[in-house]
Amino acid sequence: MINFTFYTPTRVLFGVGRIKEVGSEIKKSNVKKVLLVAGGGSIKKNGVYDTVIASLQEQGIDWVELWGVVPNPVLSKVMEGISLAKESGVDGVLAVGGGSVIDTAKAIASGIYLDDVWASFLGKEKIKQALPLFVVLTISATGSECNGNFVITNEETKQKLGNHSPLVYPKVSIIDPSVQRTLPWNQTANGACDALSHIMESYFSGGGNETTLYVDEALTKAIIDATDKLMLNEDDLEARANLAWAATLALNGVSAAQLKGDWASHDIEHAISALHPEVAHGAGLAVVFPAWITHVWKENEPTFRRWARNVWDTDDVLTAVERLKSTYKRWGLPISLRELNLEKSEIPAIAQNATQLGKLGTVKELAQEDVEKILEIAY
Amino acid sequence: MINFTFYTPTRVLFGVGRIKEVGSEIKKSNVKKVLLVAGGGSIKKNGVYDTVIASLQEQGIDWVELWGVVPNPVLSKVMEGISLAKESGVDGVLAVGGGSVIDTAKAIASGIYLDDVWASFLGKEKIKQALPLFVVLTISATGSECNGNFVITNEETKQKLGNHSPLVYPKVSIIDPSVQRTLPWNQTANGACDALSHIMESYFSGGGNETTLYVDEALTKAIIDATDKLMLNEDDLEARANLAWAATLALNGVSAAQLKGDWASHDIEHAISALHPEVAHGAGLAVVFPAWITHVWKENEPTFRRWARNVWDTDDVLTAVERLKSTYKRWGLPISLRELNLEKSEIPAIAQNATQLGKLGTVKELAQEDVEKILEIAY
Repeated sequence: MINFTFYTPTRVLFGVGRIKEVGSEIKKSNVKKVLLVAGGGSIKKNGVYDTVIASLQEQGIDWVELWGVVPNPVLSKVMEGISLAKESGVDGVLAVGGGSVIDTAKAIASGIYLDDVWASFLGKEKIKQALPLFVVLTISATGSECNGNFVITNEETKQKLGNHSPLVYPKVSIIDPSVQRTLPWNQTANGACDALSHIMESYFSGGGNETTLYVDEALTKAIIDATDKLMLNEDDLEARANLAWAATLALNGVSAAQLKGDWASHDIEHAISALHPEVAHGAGLAVVFPAWITHVWKENEPTFRRWARNVWDTDDVLTAVERLKSTYKRWGLPISLRELNLEKSEIPAIAQNATQLGKLGTVKELAQEDVEKILEIAY
Repeated sequence: MINFTFYTPTRVLFGVGRIKEVGSEIKKSNVKKVLLVAGGGSIKKNGVYDTVIASLQEQGIDWVELWGVVPNPVLSKVMEGISLAKESGVDGVLAVGGGSVIDTAKAIASGIYLDDVWASFLGKEKIKQALPLFVVLTISATGSECNGNFVITNEETKQKLGNHSPLVYPKVSIIDPSVQRTLPWNQTANGACDALSHIMESYFSGGGNETTLYVDEALTKAIIDATDKLMLNEDDLEARANLAWAATLALNGVSAAQLKGDWASHDIEHAISALHPEVAHGAGLAVVFPAWITHVWKENEPTFRRWARNVWDTDDVLTAVERLKSTYKRWGLPISLRELNLEKSEIPAIAQNATQLGKLGTVKELAQEDVEKILEIAY
């Protein structure tokens, strides 16, 4: 067994019709003016923006808006947000969107107090303070609504790096699964793959930690069931709720308790999308993870066999990998680098980018050559 | 689907050797003097008391001690604690023990600010403030280390009632599973049954809420596996850790998300131990729950059948109940009222006590006659 700390202070308001509570929640925290961070405009189409604004107005909370956060969110937008937050004198940040919007909001909320926000991603400056953060979630995938993690891409240096601080946990996150019914299918599928991958990053580093292994298998099955149901009927509210809640638990500490975690597959995916920002995070993971399992499973055979048996009903790990790939394929996700339109010749550069800060993973420590092998399997 | 709020702000420090962190955690919260609440003295035998005191001294935190909390903790001890807390001017409460100790500590922490602490159990006075609470857990069972619930028995009125406030969540709970290796076996078994019962109270009220149903099945299997391993070897640290962590998740909100909950079985057990304080809570639940299932399962057949299939590998609910009872029996728990040394003639009085504040449960609303029927099945 390993020691761990479980800390998940975010208050989650889950359910249909709860977005209108956002104003009163912000008011309870004594925040007067927020920076509203948003993406490309889908929240204007699905009514979420109008509900949020009405709630802010009703509670007398002022706001300024930062639009245009893109998938694989970038440092330049974070810098723009920090300037705007400083100029306008906000005392809180409100993210209305998915993981990219929340991660950008976390970087702004903490970055406003830093000399150089990017230095904190490189471990050169420490986050000591942050504006209170509130979240209205519009796509379940990254789990960012209920943790202290955030990932930003520096477009200039072509680095996509993760960051963490207990100070950027959202105070409140509102998850109304009904607003996700209008998502394009590929976003639902990418989100499901991202959530599954978060569970696998923890699970495969396990051994005797059976409580969390059982819970992780449960979340895996819940995500697969819910996504299969949504493939048949994107309007299925119960399946939306099940997928949304499982995606939150997949990265709020529950799936990772007792476990060391690996995270090499995420690092490899980050290198792919740092160099190819058009690759969605979930799609990249669908390509990388099966290849990573194929390369490393003999390093922790009992746990990979347990996963094969308890999730995929087979004793053979490689058969389980094929079933995972079929699942992704059924959902319309890519399962090869080729399908992401990458050239085989790019593999060394991706592997070099992935390992620039050192070896990856814990199940097997991966050097550049290992990452190249995994990418060749994935090709 | 139903709307819910998930809020679990307690910071859990889990693992071997972590009890010595208690002083620095209390100091971080700026607390200078705590009321240390404890039970009958087992913490002096297993070394936990010495570790706690050394840590308080090292951090310069003063304390006064309240000893003698008993299983099925009583109001008179709460009153004694409130007086002592007021006299000695403490600004925090530190519970060192199991659920009874923690529940007493919660009642004191909130009761110090109330005109009449028992009135808050009857819903006649509202908890508006509480001293910060810290916990060192010595037996995993009630989940009280990570929630806002507490149950106290009023010896005069013979009422055992639950209470809840978000203000009494522990700030920090330390769970070192290694200190539980010296527990008498019946306490381990009672604890496992209590944790299983918390999951069942939520689970059986479910339907389409598959994510939580899957998670609850996982926790159920984890608890059964870990307890079976401990029956073979009470020193098995990994099994202690798995049981401890599953018991925390069984009542910190994770097992209950998306679900309404039933809680009739707990109410019936509370009536039994209000009238017979010698009955341990876990033992009472082992008797009541199988009988409750037998009486109500047809009210929510699909979910009871799912439980039978996914946990007990049978399609027949009554066969599953027999397997649950065999499990309890294997662990040395009582499975009939007779084994609790109760007379059949007491059934009407117990049923009357259980329903004194109204009907029980949600799966089926139970009037006094229903409770009598359940107790007859349990006899």
